[in-house]
Amino acid sequence: MTGFINESFLLSNETARLLYHDYAASLPIIDYHSHIDAEDIAVDRRYPNITHLWLAGDHYKWRLMRLAGVGEHFITGAADDYDKFFAFARTLPQAIGNPVYHFTHLELKRYFDCDYLLTAETAATVWELCNEKLGDDDMTVRGIIEKSKVTVIGTTDDPCDSLRWHQELAADDGFAPQVLPTFRPDGAVDIDKPTFRNYISTLGEKSGVEITSLTDLYQALQNRLDFFAACGCVMADHGLSNLPYLDDSIIADNTLFAKTAADIFAKSLHGEVLRSEECEIYQTAILLFLAREYHRRGWVMQLHLGALRDVNPKMAALVGANSGFDAIRGDTNVINLAKFLAWLETNDALPKTILYSLNPADDPLLVAVAACFPGEGIAAKVQHGSAWWFNDTLQGIEAQLTNLASRGLVGSFLGMLTDSRSFLSYSRHEYFRRILCNLLGTWAERGECTGDKRELGQIIKSICHDNAAAYFGFTR
Amino acid sequence: MTGFINESFLLSNETARLLYHDYAASLPIIDYHSHIDAEDIAVDRRYPNITHLWLAGDHYKWRLMRLAGVGEHFITGAADDYDKFFAFARTLPQAIGNPVYHFTHLELKRYFDCDYLLTAETAATVWELCNEKLGDDDMTVRGIIEKSKVTVIGTTDDPCDSLRWHQELAADDGFAPQVLPTFRPDGAVDIDKPTFRNYISTLGEKSGVEITSLTDLYQALQNRLDFFAACGCVMADHGLSNLPYLDDSIIADNTLFAKTAADIFAKSLHGEVLRSEECEIYQTAILLFLAREYHRRGWVMQLHLGALRDVNPKMAALVGANSGFDAIRGDTNVINLAKFLAWLETNDALPKTILYSLNPADDPLLVAVAACFPGEGIAAKVQHGSAWWFNDTLQGIEAQLTNLASRGLVGSFLGMLTDSRSFLSYSRHEYFRRILCNLLGTWAERGECTGDKRELGQIIKSICHDNAAAYFGFTR
Amino acid sequence: MTGFINESFLLSNETARLLYHDYAASLPIIDYHSHIDAEDIAVDRRYPNITHLWLAGDHYKWRLMRLAGVGEHFITGAADDYDKFFAFARTLPQAIGNPVYHFTHLELKRYFDCDYLLTAETAATVWELCNEKLGDDDMTVRGIIEKSKVTVIGTTDDPCDSLRWHQELAADDGFAPQVLPTFRPDGAVDIDKPTFRNYISTLGEKSGVEITSLTDLYQALQNRLDFFAACGCVMADHGLSNLPYLDDSIIADNTLFAKTAADIFAKSLHGEVLRSEECEIYQTAILLFLAREYHRRGWVMQLHLGALRDVNPKMAALVGANSGFDAIRGDTNVINLAKFLAWLETNDALPKTILYSLNPADDPLLVAVAACFPGEGIAAKVQHGSAWWFNDTLQGIEAQLTNLASRGLVGSFLGMLTDSRSFLSYSRHEYFRRILCNLLGTWAERGECTGDKRELGQIIKSICHDNAAAYFGFTR
Repeated sequence: MTGFINESFLLSNETARLLYHDYAASLPIIDYHSHIDAEDIAVDRRYPNITHLWLAGDHYKWRLMRLAGVGEHFITGAADDYDKFFAFARTLPQAIGNPVYHFTHLELKRYFDCDYLLTAETAATVWELCNEKLGDDDMTVRGIIEKSKVTVIGTTDDPCDSLRWHQELAADDGFAPQVLPTFRPDGAVDIDKPTFRNYISTLGEKSGVEITSLTDLYQALQNRLDFFAACGCVMADHGLSNLPYLDDSIIADNTLFAKTAADIFAKSLHGEVLRSEECEIYQTAILLFLAREYHRRGWVMQLHLGALRDVNPKMAALVGANSGFDAIRGDTNVINLAKFLAWLETNDALPKTILYSLNPADDPLLVAVAACFPGEGIAAKVQHGSAWWFNDTLQGIEAQLTNLASRGLVGSFLGMLTDSRSFLSYSRHEYFRRILCNLLGTWAERGECTGDKRELGQIIKSICHDNAAAYFGFTR
Repeated sequence: MTGFINESFLLSNETARLLYHDYAASLPIIDYHSHIDAEDIAVDRRYPNITHLWLAGDHYKWRLMRLAGVGEHFITGAADDYDKFFAFARTLPQAIGNPVYHFTHLELKRYFDCDYLLTAETAATVWELCNEKLGDDDMTVRGIIEKSKVTVIGTTDDPCDSLRWHQELAADDGFAPQVLPTFRPDGAVDIDKPTFRNYISTLGEKSGVEITSLTDLYQALQNRLDFFAACGCVMADHGLSNLPYLDDSIIADNTLFAKTAADIFAKSLHGEVLRSEECEIYQTAILLFLAREYHRRGWVMQLHLGALRDVNPKMAALVGANSGFDAIRGDTNVINLAKFLAWLETNDALPKTILYSLNPADDPLLVAVAACFPGEGIAAKVQHGSAWWFNDTLQGIEAQLTNLASRGLVGSFLGMLTDSRSFLSYSRHEYFRRILCNLLGTWAERGECTGDKRELGQIIKSICHDNAAAYFGFTR
Repeated sequence: MTGFINESFLLSNETARLLYHDYAASLPIIDYHSHIDAEDIAVDRRYPNITHLWLAGDHYKWRLMRLAGVGEHFITGAADDYDKFFAFARTLPQAIGNPVYHFTHLELKRYFDCDYLLTAETAATVWELCNEKLGDDDMTVRGIIEKSKVTVIGTTDDPCDSLRWHQELAADDGFAPQVLPTFRPDGAVDIDKPTFRNYISTLGEKSGVEITSLTDLYQALQNRLDFFAACGCVMADHGLSNLPYLDDSIIADNTLFAKTAADIFAKSLHGEVLRSEECEIYQTAILLFLAREYHRRGWVMQLHLGALRDVNPKMAALVGANSGFDAIRGDTNVINLAKFLAWLETNDALPKTILYSLNPADDPLLVAVAACFPGEGIAAKVQHGSAWWFNDTLQGIEAQLTNLASRGLVGSFLGMLTDSRSFLSYSRHEYFRRILCNLLGTWAERGECTGDKRELGQIIKSICHDNAAAYFGFTR
């Protein structure tokens, strides 16, 4: 692997190298958005082999294997662990240019001290090497987190979740990093889903509120918001197909709007089928309610827009949701988004907000609309989030940074997050930091900005760590 | 032309040059999608001068000339051949950065051994040189194909076509390359066009079926599908303004859906004007029928999305369709596309499919949706096609490859096609191969992937030739 | 600032440097579209300090300051001039990668001979230096224009404007540059705005026509068009949320269409609330009327599409319109645009037209549609305009040029304009020229086009000056 994952990986010039090694490399990691399981940290899970760690839950890798024509038996099926690993190994060489190719080799190097390129030929050797290493004392989940210098982990949690593991971790003096829940109430927003009534029923139980009206639902959510806050939560997250919003004339009459939304919710509880406009009215009402609550509590609201989920119903039936059959919608309505933010701003209820879209063509639009909602004393109160999912690539990260810099204020950016289900993904922060340092170093060497290393280093430190600490209020 | 079209054209580093010259340059060409006329091959056409070969049918060149303010007289009008050539020659220097600028000089070098830059000053010299060369024995259509090392040519054909020339060529032992028809039934899909009834009538004649119902139409198409298959066809192609699709509730009841579509077709045959929703219902029905047929036969379905055709009715009236007055729609509905593919997948009727859009902003969306429909044992069963038409440029090809690599599996890509009306366009495969080798070579030299030439060479060989051979089943 | 704003700024290779210094640098400037105030030129305004010149009207800078968390008091509020300057100075280092960062330092260098990077540390020094320089004789508005070698300035003017200052300037023999008005009748198009009736009333007064019908409105506009033409106007400009257009069936019957539009206008004058379709019908009618008038007079029509204005009503109420709370719509309908242009073409009424969109994803679509409407003897009669507003960045300009070159004819491009409210913005022409020379120089050095400096120099001269002179008919 000479010339590939080395000291200078992704650092094309002297300034970039200096910035990375002198400023970025040693910073602790605030991983404020991920999908890891707090239980794995609490019980300090250990993995029997690399397939469990790499291939048990990573739908990015599954997609590549499927694209190579690998059968589902070797992906989510009953094949044995080595055969699955081998199927991945023989796929990987075809994936040059894909972040999985980079991430895989970066993880091999950083966590397994492995210099092999993973191919069909090296598969057996790498398998042995990794599995042996996984027996080391410090290769448990906590060991990985600590050696990665992670100080904060944001998980993603349903309002119905007991947060038992977060509470155990908070009470555990032997583990320093903060593991904080994120409030993700999609179940209460998605009134168009067949699972909605069951969800509301469960939420009622968990919150101790019998939910027979929208007022009850709001009370139930309040209870859970309070509980999450007590467990250290400072963030909410929404996965939205698109931003619902309504005609100004409907919004204008708050009383009528509230009554209409309440009636729609009642209809839904009675099992009536709703028209799509009714769904939108309800969703607008609950989103405005929730955003107001986030603002009141000083929380950050994350909006993840534009995912087209589970588009292959045959495979979804076979292997379940979130298994790599998702795409990009392409119909983000920025005008509705602007109206949504404007309503909140006008009502002094706009929380700090991070906008993500799965459609890269939205990026200039999101940066532009975000800048319209500043907050005195808060850098980039509304801001465009890090390159997400299909855009979390070398080119995607460069494009996100360049777009933010050229149309916004890059120095106020919150930086990277893993969004991952795997504990090895902290090396994505290294990936991001190298790309960031390379970009700024390249600008400096091309004479497009200051060449003052200290000043550039300060911007890098802000983006990689300090901005997130200040924005979320992490003081530990 | 020192420093322009030389050995290193588009190859910016040592690895790129090695990959191109050692792996890509000598591969045969599978040109699976083009608009050339099989008759020209069958009769082994010879061109009296370069204007006939270059300017008689190339609306790319016409557009550039019109943008330079050249009058239609010198483009599609009655001006004499040299004057047309001269008008093009004086336009070309303004076209730097345009693929026509690259293609023109590449064709001059490769087919005419001509080192001149084409300008107003060199026009007369180049005219003489080319026309003299066109007198050479090997400068007939077959000579050009053979010296270009083309092994397969896919043409684009109406279901009503007799395929007479394809049959003659198949029977001709003196010409090795395969010339295969592609089934393009737009005429039977475009129920909203004024020409629809006439088309159906012709199709009835050619297929030996009196078409008075949708069932008859399906039978007529079956007959023609059988006939095309007998002539070696393994591909279909559709030019769609956008993907029609219907509410889930309508699709859900297959019997009702079929009856509705049949009634709409009957109304159309009786000359009734259809509402746009009726057109969509019919189009959805016939596309699902055809796709199912392609799947049953093991064919590949190509979908060309997003062209806004003949937007200048005044000029269309003057010079006809497909003469350079086309644009890009910008309203591709990927959600409908996903539903269309999902319906086929659920009904075990999804053929191998290649997706193209004229809007480059669709590319990430198409790569993402394609990956949701894998096929065991088939690499990239649904895939994003090569950069098309207005995107078939240096930057467009790089963007398509980079997007595919970073969001999909580049090693399974089918590679280049000319999509051309000209026999000199095979040099576009060289253009593509150079860009591909430069991209992979650059990644390798930057340390973003393996530096193993053999491994990179294998990926290049796959993309430039082997993948297409396997996907289409070309074994000769 | 060694290595930043020097001779080679943005010029990465020898050919680029030669092209810039030998061909581009010395060309006069035609700034055909701006928002500067003709009165400032007429009275030869002088600025008491740099805050007045830089920060009194520049919403680009305000946005960056707000993104940094600066309070409105220091932006548009009552803070004193130095404190505002200081707030900007401490924001700027975070804005690397933003054109404001480049423009600010370029203006410091070119107009103030100042080599400092502007930061919190240098703020006081730069403040003194600039303010002293502003006392120089040649640092009045006229002095700045003349030292910038500007020969034509296009302002942007309401049809109701008296053009008093344009007339004074035309009569002033002591000032050579032409200052020409641009006819921007948004007030007469925006029937959906609450200000519409008042606007029509004012227009009636200014034009000497009592407006009680659409016919009267057309007469009033004719009068103002005649008056503007008499003041040297050769351009119109429209800011359109999107291009209104109508079903072919409505347009088809011109008489009915005209009557419908007239009725809608009458309803509006009587204070009735219009439905959005009625607004569209009216807007289509008046736009077609105006375009036809522009064509008749040989004017150029500019269409600025896709701005989402004043999205933050709370801040708009506080600080007014055009103060930095604008975003990008993302819903440009190119199909409607094509129909609009086609209607005009078919009716021999299509003026020279420049298309701009705030959504960079529209660029390939605009270049493609523009090429469908050529004009014999007019290079690029309809063309894609220079990178606009949020796209007027280093990457945005490169992308616009590359898109135009690869999908159109770059040699016919009209080149740069400032679109600015500030007299220091003429250095943006330098910025553009450097980017253009760097792009062409890079192509030449990479062997992607001719290396003939004279030929490349001619293209640069055309784009930077000659094309605009020919297109607009500036002969002085």
